[in-house]
Amino acid sequence: MNTALILAGGSGTRMGIDCPKQFLTVRNKPIISYCFDIFQNHSEIDAMVVVVSDEWRDFVEESARKYGVDKLCGFAPAGKTRQHSIYNGLKCIAENCPDTDIVIVHDAARPLVSDKIISDCIQGATEYDGAMPVISVKDTVYQSKDGKTIDHLLKRSELFAGQAPESFKFKKYYQIHNEVTDEEIGSTAGSSEIAYRHGMEIRMVSGSERNLKITTIEDLETFEAILRGEI
Amino acid sequence: MNTALILAGGSGTRMGIDCPKQFLTVRNKPIISYCFDIFQNHSEIDAMVVVVSDEWRDFVEESARKYGVDKLCGFAPAGKTRQHSIYNGLKCIAENCPDTDIVIVHDAARPLVSDKIISDCIQGATEYDGAMPVISVKDTVYQSKDGKTIDHLLKRSELFAGQAPESFKFKKYYQIHNEVTDEEIGSTAGSSEIAYRHGMEIRMVSGSERNLKITTIEDLETFEAILRGEI
Repeated sequence: MNTALILAGGSGTRMGIDCPKQFLTVRNKPIISYCFDIFQNHSEIDAMVVVVSDEWRDFVEESARKYGVDKLCGFAPAGKTRQHSIYNGLKCIAENCPDTDIVIVHDAARPLVSDKIISDCIQGATEYDGAMPVISVKDTVYQSKDGKTIDHLLKRSELFAGQAPESFKFKKYYQIHNEVTDEEIGSTAGSSEIAYRHGMEIRMVSGSERNLKITTIEDLETFEAILRGEI
Repeated sequence: MNTALILAGGSGTRMGIDCPKQFLTVRNKPIISYCFDIFQNHSEIDAMVVVVSDEWRDFVEESARKYGVDKLCGFAPAGKTRQHSIYNGLKCIAENCPDTDIVIVHDAARPLVSDKIISDCIQGATEYDGAMPVISVKDTVYQSKDGKTIDHLLKRSELFAGQAPESFKFKKYYQIHNEVTDEEIGSTAGSSEIAYRHGMEIRMVSGSERNLKITTIEDLETFEAILRGEI
């Protein structure tokens, strides 16, 4: 079975507002509910687990009820880092959905992920150990170790901007988390990083510019414009 | 003396329109003329050389006349790559402005560069061998040699997105171009690359999100919104 792990533990401090971005209401609907809809209606997704802080759990439960989500099978508490939150979610899956073959880790703040990207991620984790949607990097990216002098220009053809969801063979991915130190989990900057570092083969699949992560006010305006059909 | 080298040889094919983007008219004024204004009015810029294809040269001369540009001291033909165009511009500077100490290489399609960025670039090339404005990279950037499997996640703190203008000590930079092979010039992906590869110390200075390069229709819309004072 394929289980979606929805990360909604973020505090939204980057926007300078009190409400975490994934719970903001856009067109009378919380952003997280757009994600719920997508995963609820996707035929290859069997279950959902949500990582959320205690104070927002009632809100998320109520949102799931209101929008007819019946695949929800558990909540996990937010961790001190994103990867700790993922680990909490994996433990919840191991307990509540032990038959999970593939876990699909998604950010609640990415409400525009397409059905195709989810399907491609599931296929990638079936054929290999995992998959991540990527888009090309538009910037000319230079590397500088000291932050002052340029060391070198990175080859654009070898660079890819990572998106979510990231999919993994559940048992392998969970086992890695059980075996590494808490410090290693804390220093993980991307959820695929800990996977390929421990030998899992993570394939890239095509992401999309539309699959944006709502982080700033400008992103929120872009999301609203997309919903209005302007973009 | 400080000489600006304005690159206007691009064909603009990425936009799917016949007119190169730097010659499009925005608010009754060609984009390149916004650049002319900035460099014409900057107290530390003494001269300008423009790289332009033959068929657009009359248009550029006319635009410069119309907008009162009197620092223009030469034209160079567009080359087969951006770096070949730069080399053509450097030869023109060596001939027409032989007292140039610092060359400031700018894209005509970046009409929003600030006076401060230009000053910082000049200062950087005075104290070191050159300078380039950079902004932080927002993406989570992964590297993949084969374009299929992820090799590793790059440290965001070491990554910088390069902008223009790039400034260089003229004689050193020109000499490198005279000494390397035509092939090396052709394979140069960023104008600073050939400099630091041959031992020049290129410092990073603060760029700006506003200093965008107009490449797509969306960029053009952003530029118009900025001119209208909306952003």
